[in-house]
Amino acid sequence: MRIPINKKSDIPLYHQIESYLRQGILSGSLPPDMRLPACRQLAQDLGVNRTTVENAYAKLEADGLVFSRMGSGTYVLPVNSIPAITKNNRSASWPLWQASVQDRNIVSKADMVDEILHTAGHPNPISFASGISDARQFPIEEFRKVLQAVMRRDQISALEYGERNGYAPLREGIAHILASQGLQAHPENILITAGSQQAIFLASQVLLKPGDIVLVEEPTYSVALDLFRALGFHTVGIPMDSQGMQVENLEKLLQQHHPRLIYTIPNFHNPTGTCLSSARRRELIVLAERYNIPILEDDFVGDLRYEGHAQPSLKALDPGGQVIYVSTFSKMLMPGLRVGFIVADGPVFDSLLNFKRLSDLATSTLIQRALDAYVSVGRYQAYLRRSSQTFRKRRDTMLKAIDHYLPSGISFDPPKGGLFVWLRLPKSLSASELLPVACKEGVSFVPGNYFFTDGISGKEWIRLNFAAQPEEAVTEGIKRLGRAMRKMSTHK
Amino acid sequence: MRIPINKKSDIPLYHQIESYLRQGILSGSLPPDMRLPACRQLAQDLGVNRTTVENAYAKLEADGLVFSRMGSGTYVLPVNSIPAITKNNRSASWPLWQASVQDRNIVSKADMVDEILHTAGHPNPISFASGISDARQFPIEEFRKVLQAVMRRDQISALEYGERNGYAPLREGIAHILASQGLQAHPENILITAGSQQAIFLASQVLLKPGDIVLVEEPTYSVALDLFRALGFHTVGIPMDSQGMQVENLEKLLQQHHPRLIYTIPNFHNPTGTCLSSARRRELIVLAERYNIPILEDDFVGDLRYEGHAQPSLKALDPGGQVIYVSTFSKMLMPGLRVGFIVADGPVFDSLLNFKRLSDLATSTLIQRALDAYVSVGRYQAYLRRSSQTFRKRRDTMLKAIDHYLPSGISFDPPKGGLFVWLRLPKSLSASELLPVACKEGVSFVPGNYFFTDGISGKEWIRLNFAAQPEEAVTEGIKRLGRAMRKMSTHK
Repeated sequence: MRIPINKKSDIPLYHQIESYLRQGILSGSLPPDMRLPACRQLAQDLGVNRTTVENAYAKLEADGLVFSRMGSGTYVLPVNSIPAITKNNRSASWPLWQASVQDRNIVSKADMVDEILHTAGHPNPISFASGISDARQFPIEEFRKVLQAVMRRDQISALEYGERNGYAPLREGIAHILASQGLQAHPENILITAGSQQAIFLASQVLLKPGDIVLVEEPTYSVALDLFRALGFHTVGIPMDSQGMQVENLEKLLQQHHPRLIYTIPNFHNPTGTCLSSARRRELIVLAERYNIPILEDDFVGDLRYEGHAQPSLKALDPGGQVIYVSTFSKMLMPGLRVGFIVADGPVFDSLLNFKRLSDLATSTLIQRALDAYVSVGRYQAYLRRSSQTFRKRRDTMLKAIDHYLPSGISFDPPKGGLFVWLRLPKSLSASELLPVACKEGVSFVPGNYFFTDGISGKEWIRLNFAAQPEEAVTEGIKRLGRAMRKMSTHK
Repeated sequence: MRIPINKKSDIPLYHQIESYLRQGILSGSLPPDMRLPACRQLAQDLGVNRTTVENAYAKLEADGLVFSRMGSGTYVLPVNSIPAITKNNRSASWPLWQASVQDRNIVSKADMVDEILHTAGHPNPISFASGISDARQFPIEEFRKVLQAVMRRDQISALEYGERNGYAPLREGIAHILASQGLQAHPENILITAGSQQAIFLASQVLLKPGDIVLVEEPTYSVALDLFRALGFHTVGIPMDSQGMQVENLEKLLQQHHPRLIYTIPNFHNPTGTCLSSARRRELIVLAERYNIPILEDDFVGDLRYEGHAQPSLKALDPGGQVIYVSTFSKMLMPGLRVGFIVADGPVFDSLLNFKRLSDLATSTLIQRALDAYVSVGRYQAYLRRSSQTFRKRRDTMLKAIDHYLPSGISFDPPKGGLFVWLRLPKSLSASELLPVACKEGVSFVPGNYFFTDGISGKEWIRLNFAAQPEEAVTEGIKRLGRAMRKMSTHK
């Protein structure tokens, strides 16, 4: 036990030791039934007399905080009323440097939506604010067995550092799944990451420096916007329509802003749900090549299609190493596993690999091995089919409920895949004003302005996740949303 | 299947589909026995005629690449000789932006040591180059059972996103372990990270911007140096002696360089193994406060003590939020689990939390839950006692072997804890010249210059990890090192 004592202090050593232990016991950080070190041991650890420690223990025992059992040791007793140490957050006296840190602090508003929902106190809240699909769909029992088998098979290797770019069999498995999706990648060009968030993070770090400009679809994934801001990048938005990014307007922006990166979600876009048209995909790559700008393609749910034709990924259309492709198992399979990946060609791959190592050395090998054992192409395809069926039904349920329960004046393009309905509110309504009213009714959504580069535009939009709830909840949630909208209109 | 086809191309559609599949089969990315989508399905996916797909499949079948089974589907056949697609790394024609990425690429030399060892071809190589302890010590079977129990208990919650700062019971458990080590921290001031590497990374990102200066011990942890370089920081070294960082020289450096951070490993320092003296600890904190500079304390093996008195962590001596404390379960317990943590007070905690979220959203909840169930204070203390006994013996074995088998002229301070012996070579020897010779003899170490800010100084030093090998291997490794040293001297 490394108790901080000061031998030069005027306070007697036994009292310093006693104070430390007393504070720990009262605050609960030294929990009841914990055995304190033997007097002889602690005296040796701290370089003090044994009597000094004995005196400290004796005082604590006299005050009823510890209990000595002959030949067994000294144990912490339960404290009747624990005056918990409050979180150390005095405002006045922090070191000065902490103030400048605060200035650079960007807290995402998206996280706060479900806090509002839960503090609104509805007995049975329904969230349409989630960015992921429904984890309850995942066959947890099967995965548990696979994890067991992997640990029995690999023993201690399952817990050692793995290869720098990820567990090789998993990278091969990913290459097979990608090939079945129309993207042929060599396992050596795949880097395993902690979810697609880390993939976006690494690509940003490697490609840009503070002050650089990123072109993004307007609107776009809010956590990517938060990330770009936190890293000191400027974002410029490209308008969208029902065919995705308006690539016709791209060249002008490229000439005007000299961006260092184009970040795009071409398939079942977050938040709008649109797919970039085939012609625009080819044009986008041509322009990126002509202006020498890398494309970061975020294909977070590219395979989750309910109707229409499959579009190849941008990466599949790019022979020249222009596109960095990121995707994930997290969104569709299991958020908590935190496994995503990057596909990249050329020198940039080694930079990404190197930066991955500097930021967290490696992603848990155990989880990678389990995922490898679990996700075969066949199993993935089957899981995808099942999920697509379930989520298609939920989408249809939501569209029907919108038709039934929402007031006229709303509008949207029915999404052909993915997770989201992007809905335009009636003219008089503002998303941020609607949110607290909706939360009181027991339903949440993400206000549209969270997805815009200025954080202000887009107040007439809301994003609804139709995939995260069973059908009954989808219907009930939209019913509540309708009530909230009508309340707002009445108050106007 | 999202095959990239171009409807405006002159190449017939059936041929485009056939080419894609052929390439996938020949390269192995569409593996043998994989079932291709039904013709009707693929035609619908791609928006082409069914006959188009049938023609493509027929051509592939005629060439012996696929096999159709009536009523069951079309399957990929094994290819006799697979001309694997080579990793896509043509040098000439990458987009121009890739060149600038390459310039910013810093690859750590430390990773290459064991590559040299393994390509040297000794039948039974012994590595003293590792930065971690011995994973074989870990009771994997016990942990497997705990992991099982956690998945049975928590079901799908074990795989969902958890709290933003980490699984609450684990944070409480860490608070208890820290208190038993003399550091009282509130669980709300603890942030779970992907190993201590991510902890260092987050603190750097939050506290500094490119061009800023970091004060580090000279020498220091090489991956931290790599990280600081990659993020565009400058490093200034503070000399060390047997009592750790020469704090007497600190004030001068603070005035001269205006650093934005002091990075220090006060306990069983990497690579030197020294402990910062008690007086210097207090002086360091006083100076950091006076000059308004945060201290990043890396306590990677602070508890792994074999003799001498326990020193409190800097964080325990710091009442004012000056010190950011990082530590890990990885080094001592299980590298592959990738779980570390930060303790920080004041506004900087929220910045760290926010940046953690932006860089990878969260660390795997499953592993956090398992670790929580596995690591009680009692179990941790027991594991620590056992490890300390084992590693103390290995240290003693290495010191004895050094005495027996290394030539005169070497010198070192025997470490009182941790993992490393930091050894000064005889005057005529250079570590980087010794390394390939030693690897041929079947033993590796890390050359001292890897730990110096300029990457050049310190060639007369080597770092030996005594904890990662059983005692016989430690002795045998030092024997080999002695042979290598004598070979070098003879050649001079």
